[in-house]
Amino acid sequence: MNYESYFQQLREQHLEQLKQFLTIPSISALSEHKQDMNEAAQWVAQKLKEAGMDIVEVHPTSGHPIVYAEHLHAPGKPTVLIYGHYDVQPVDPLHLWETPPFEPTIRGGKLYARGATDDKGQLFLHIKAVEALLRQEGELPVNVKFCIEGEEEISSPSLPAFMKTNEEKLATDVVVISDTSLLEKGKPAISTGLRGLCSLEVAIQTANTDLHSGTYGGGVPNALHALIELLASLHDDKGRITVEGFYEGVPELSAAMREEFAKQQFNEEKLQNHLGLDALYGEEGYTFVERTGARPTLELNGVYGGFQGEGTKTVIPKEAHAKITCRLVGSQDPVATLERISAHLHTHVPTGAKLTVTPGEKARAFNMDPSHPVLQTAADAYEEVYGTRALFTKDGGSIPIVETFSRVLSAPVVMMGFGLPDENLHAPNEHFNLENFDKGLLTIVAFLKRL
Amino acid sequence: MNYESYFQQLREQHLEQLKQFLTIPSISALSEHKQDMNEAAQWVAQKLKEAGMDIVEVHPTSGHPIVYAEHLHAPGKPTVLIYGHYDVQPVDPLHLWETPPFEPTIRGGKLYARGATDDKGQLFLHIKAVEALLRQEGELPVNVKFCIEGEEEISSPSLPAFMKTNEEKLATDVVVISDTSLLEKGKPAISTGLRGLCSLEVAIQTANTDLHSGTYGGGVPNALHALIELLASLHDDKGRITVEGFYEGVPELSAAMREEFAKQQFNEEKLQNHLGLDALYGEEGYTFVERTGARPTLELNGVYGGFQGEGTKTVIPKEAHAKITCRLVGSQDPVATLERISAHLHTHVPTGAKLTVTPGEKARAFNMDPSHPVLQTAADAYEEVYGTRALFTKDGGSIPIVETFSRVLSAPVVMMGFGLPDENLHAPNEHFNLENFDKGLLTIVAFLKRL
Repeated sequence: MNYESYFQQLREQHLEQLKQFLTIPSISALSEHKQDMNEAAQWVAQKLKEAGMDIVEVHPTSGHPIVYAEHLHAPGKPTVLIYGHYDVQPVDPLHLWETPPFEPTIRGGKLYARGATDDKGQLFLHIKAVEALLRQEGELPVNVKFCIEGEEEISSPSLPAFMKTNEEKLATDVVVISDTSLLEKGKPAISTGLRGLCSLEVAIQTANTDLHSGTYGGGVPNALHALIELLASLHDDKGRITVEGFYEGVPELSAAMREEFAKQQFNEEKLQNHLGLDALYGEEGYTFVERTGARPTLELNGVYGGFQGEGTKTVIPKEAHAKITCRLVGSQDPVATLERISAHLHTHVPTGAKLTVTPGEKARAFNMDPSHPVLQTAADAYEEVYGTRALFTKDGGSIPIVETFSRVLSAPVVMMGFGLPDENLHAPNEHFNLENFDKGLLTIVAFLKRL
Repeated sequence: MNYESYFQQLREQHLEQLKQFLTIPSISALSEHKQDMNEAAQWVAQKLKEAGMDIVEVHPTSGHPIVYAEHLHAPGKPTVLIYGHYDVQPVDPLHLWETPPFEPTIRGGKLYARGATDDKGQLFLHIKAVEALLRQEGELPVNVKFCIEGEEEISSPSLPAFMKTNEEKLATDVVVISDTSLLEKGKPAISTGLRGLCSLEVAIQTANTDLHSGTYGGGVPNALHALIELLASLHDDKGRITVEGFYEGVPELSAAMREEFAKQQFNEEKLQNHLGLDALYGEEGYTFVERTGARPTLELNGVYGGFQGEGTKTVIPKEAHAKITCRLVGSQDPVATLERISAHLHTHVPTGAKLTVTPGEKARAFNMDPSHPVLQTAADAYEEVYGTRALFTKDGGSIPIVETFSRVLSAPVVMMGFGLPDENLHAPNEHFNLENFDKGLLTIVAFLKRL
């Protein structure tokens, strides 16, 4: 049976299995989901066993477990390490979901659930592609290893140490990751760059208690005023980041890179309309793909302080908080960046406010040369299935572990994404377009056979 | 029996009754407390009946009920209308309360509960003072009316209409209100001014969904960035409000007013230490009492948007919110002020952000001449009980209805406060110092007898 018929025949069964996977609320950031994390890891291990992997191991870590599997019966052939993650982002604001995030629902050819595309859906494709090859051919065209973690959404704190300890076990010729996107429907892409990431939390405290805005208003510091003044100082009126030294290590965009970006023929107006925006926004002198692919950011992800309930409360809040992440490019150093931001905040903190800065995640940006043969083989596989050759892009997101894989295992990393850019990753109503579910399975099979 | 002995004898019983009153969570701002509001109104009505008032009525309104009572058997004597409110502020952040807000607890001579001082505790003093006069003398030295509402903390939306409809019923020679503070322990004060108030809510919307900060970060507007930029534009770096025309109607401080303020000998350093502040803060060229008594404010009471949970969420929020109140002085017009702020916000809203401004409460400032005889009589009553004459002050808070009382009933308003400035009004651990519970009862009796 050809692979198209094979996958068609098993489509309902595969979707039912994926739905089952998606019902597990494996939110790595929230400690109350500890048990769900174990359940999701066990689910992945079970499916790898059913697929025919020889060895399947669930490794406990100080955080969430890592699932490892191998099938090494192709002597003389390359080894492929498939990476993915079974953890998902938090789901709030919950009221904006049309169907509950952990009750997977298919509507209009799309599968809606938290993790549908990031990354449970895409990870699932690899398990089913390997299973298909084994069932159809009785063997695999290459040696295959899986390394599936549960901490990608919290910056993979356990995986680097696991990688170092198990360097030999994980040794490979190529790492394959499906956690990125096509350019748009029908336009495949292979990401050759990822932005780095660093995160921090900022807390302002003023008085030792909330105060009445009548009795004290105008005479004491207000934690929200101090925080807003401080946060506003981080960008100038053109949206450029004002932190001293922030842009150190950011490469200037060469004419060649601008040309590569321009090849995507990205439709900014279409995006603007799709997102219901009056205007896109960003650094002057750059297009949207350049801004998101090759420029760093300093972004407020959450700000809160004072009264949030119904009605009015005439209070001067004693504390206020902000959550910030930066996307990094080129050789920007996440540790130095966090230090620079902290120094900026401490220099600018207004009179009467006490500042606490808590640094968080740290990951460098990653870049690969598109001319590498394994990337060209991946582009061939896409062309076979999609009828159009994959473009080489830079992805604005961060998969902090990619840079570590490439460094520790000294192997090229192929980012074969099957998501779409508008599938609400990290937002309400995340979904996975099933056209790419079908084509993804075939593309992975084609890639493994061509290696 | 003299009144000191009388109140001493009944002290435990009175405190038990007040505690009972304080267990009712009558938060007017939250619609879920509708039933508690009725219960609190009925409690007040019952206690007025027990005190010996002839007529006691509970008037339904479109909001929360108004309790009216009268005892008019002193022909030829003046009529006193006692105003108070049985509603209280919301209680969050709840985790900062040492004992639950609606489980009144006495610790170190202070009664802790939401509403202990603002205004259930102070209102209760008047009921018990009138009861004492009737029991001890068999009659009242003046004609007494009570008008007790349940919407003071939400700016009294129903009372002005009630006042107009019942102008004759409420007709009086003097209005007495106990909803303000002594200057400090042992230093009584009569407030001859209150700041006005206006409130608004600000909402920013950018995209139609929350977005992934990797895929979109740097290329689309972030609702929090837009809100922070907008809010930061409301003050200059000296803390002055930058809204055009905002200071119209704000009187310059005369040398005489500055002298009156200086009489308070307010200890700014003591306040700063008490509040755990590194520094007080406010407009240059003014003292703390001038800033809070005679200068307007534009204050953030709440700001929120994006992720507030544990850990990191790499999200670009699609919406962000702020709650703002202004304290007004002199002849500042609350309606015009709201219009000016709205115009400023609409002028400064950043590219790509949609702005919604929702105006709320509106109340003018109030001022009285300290030389008025009824204020002098009140000062005499304080002197009799506290051994020191009350100072005439300006209060930074707003009791929006005071200006309405004075205008509609054409009567002087005596603000005889028995709270203390550090009793955590509107904040966690609100309390009432029982020294002023005891002295307050005696002062009210002395005042009514002297009129």
